[in-house]
Amino acid sequence: MKTDPNLNHFMFEAIELSIRNVKEGKGGPFAAIVVKDGRVISRGTNLVTSTSDPTAHAEIVAIREACKVLKSFQLVGCELYTSCEPCPMCMGAIYWARPARVYFGSTRKDAAKIGFDDSFIYNELTKSISRRKIPLIQCMREEALAAFREWQQKDDKISY
Amino acid sequence: MKTDPNLNHFMFEAIELSIRNVKEGKGGPFAAIVVKDGRVISRGTNLVTSTSDPTAHAEIVAIREACKVLKSFQLVGCELYTSCEPCPMCMGAIYWARPARVYFGSTRKDAAKIGFDDSFIYNELTKSISRRKIPLIQCMREEALAAFREWQQKDDKISY
Repeated sequence: MKTDPNLNHFMFEAIELSIRNVKEGKGGPFAAIVVKDGRVISRGTNLVTSTSDPTAHAEIVAIREACKVLKSFQLVGCELYTSCEPCPMCMGAIYWARPARVYFGSTRKDAAKIGFDDSFIYNELTKSISRRKIPLIQCMREEALAAFREWQQKDDKISY
Repeated sequence: MKTDPNLNHFMFEAIELSIRNVKEGKGGPFAAIVVKDGRVISRGTNLVTSTSDPTAHAEIVAIREACKVLKSFQLVGCELYTSCEPCPMCMGAIYWARPARVYFGSTRKDAAKIGFDDSFIYNELTKSISRRKIPLIQCMREEALAAFREWQQKDDKISY
């Protein structure tokens, strides 16, 4: 396999950022970088505790910033370098943002070993709704479908 | 089963918001509300296309806002009402925020029928990394683990 000469450089920077993030007390030991055409578009680190935002994982922060820079809700042709395998929340964000590929360093199991819930959440999402740790209760489906009918009938909608 | 008298009221409001969101052209047909002690703490609608932010799903918007209001990265004792079953990104955010329970209206299959990727992403996350549609490539694991060692050695860390 041919190795991209820039690969290690970007991953190295993501890892450096993840270490600095811990030292500076900004949040968990995670960082991510979005790259397009060999240029860094955005950098993100985990800011959950310093910003009181449970969604402020490194990948989410980097994706949101990259989309702001590109003025687009899609990361077409971009690559995401992240210091650790993305959790289900971040993987979901990746699928919605649709970058070309993702490089990661450590794994969900490595993260679980130091106390992060990534593996637990992956397991939860494979369970049927009735067996999840956080109860999920369905109600008013018929009424809720009215919004979907509204969406289907809308002529000038922007799909994503 | 005894029904919470406020239940339909909150879900009704979430559904109303989801319909209005489409009419106002702000984004997809989705809305969510965070409730604590019978009071609405935050409201969120899907703002993906209007804010160029692929992570701006209704649940994420509502969770971020609720955490801002409560000045906490945890939604202890809160309930989330969402007009549609949360996608994997939003379910991930829910597990990280840890509300007491989640009520939802329509399902991931209903969402798939009108063109949203929720079901597809759920399926992707059950696949091994090598079989996913967006390539996930591991590299530099040993180097990346340095951030985890830094985290473990940190005395004043805030876990989440």
